Amino acid sequence: MAMTHQELEEFLKAPRLARLAVVKKDGGPHVSPVWYLWEDGHFWFTTTAGRVKGRAIRRDGRVAFTIDEDTPPYRGVIVEGRAVFVPERAEEVTRRLAVRYLGQEAGEAYARELLQSPGRTAFRVRPAKLITWDYRD
Amino acid sequence: MAMTHQELEEFLKAPRLARLAVVKKDGGPHVSPVWYLWEDGHFWFTTTAGRVKGRAIRRDGRVAFTIDEDTPPYRGVIVEGRAVFVPERAEEVTRRLAVRYLGQEAGEAYARELLQSPGRTAFRVRPAKLITWDYRD
Repeated sequence: MAMTHQELEEFLKAPRLARLAVVKKDGGPHVSPVWYLWEDGHFWFTTTAGRVKGRAIRRDGRVAFTIDEDTPPYRGVIVEGRAVFVPERAEEVTRRLAVRYLGQEAGEAYARELLQSPGRTAFRVRPAKLITWDYRD
Repeated sequence: MAMTHQELEEFLKAPRLARLAVVKKDGGPHVSPVWYLWEDGHFWFTTTAGRVKGRAIRRDGRVAFTIDEDTPPYRGVIVEGRAVFVPERAEEVTRRLAVRYLGQEAGEAYARELLQSPGRTAFRVRPAKLITWDYRD
């Protein structure tokens, strides 16, 4: 059974991990757990431009990710879309993500650490395809 | 910090979900949560041959998946490898997976349901690349 709009909004508010897949240069898949923000119809993430995910997105913006419950009754969301880099929001999104997932103090400290290494960038994804499921009933 | 061999074995024993990525015909990524068995150096999964995942694997066996903890302190495993179909073990693996994740009774009932639809197949992946992390310390 699909989620209602409101159930989806509530589900995405909790600091779950997204598992985000991209396609590597050699044509094979790559997947990793990432933090996300859901805001105004866009998912926001950060990465380092020189790493696998950043390089893959620069070559081909297509990404797919799943945000889902690890234990039954299962529910979740799968999204496909095109990632767009928004470097001017790298600092802000890095801070907000770290605070969302680690809490105020630990989050701010961790964001400072992340932002010390060069190449940190933000990217956003507007869902081109979004499917949800909820087996709680 | 990476997991020790024993920590990895224990981590994989629990019925967590794997999030498995493949590459679709159009070259874009696809990812979905799946059940897995870890046995004798291979990960085992099932799918239906005609669905996105099954078709993708038939075209190009490369898969990547992450099995990881949803909450801090984070730990997990990312695997890349080549999927090989093992149709003769479809029934056995479907049953064992369902019982592992849903318990004996519900699992057996669900496996019977799954096995009624045609095209169910098993595939295994021997890790070509495996990385682990554990931030519990």
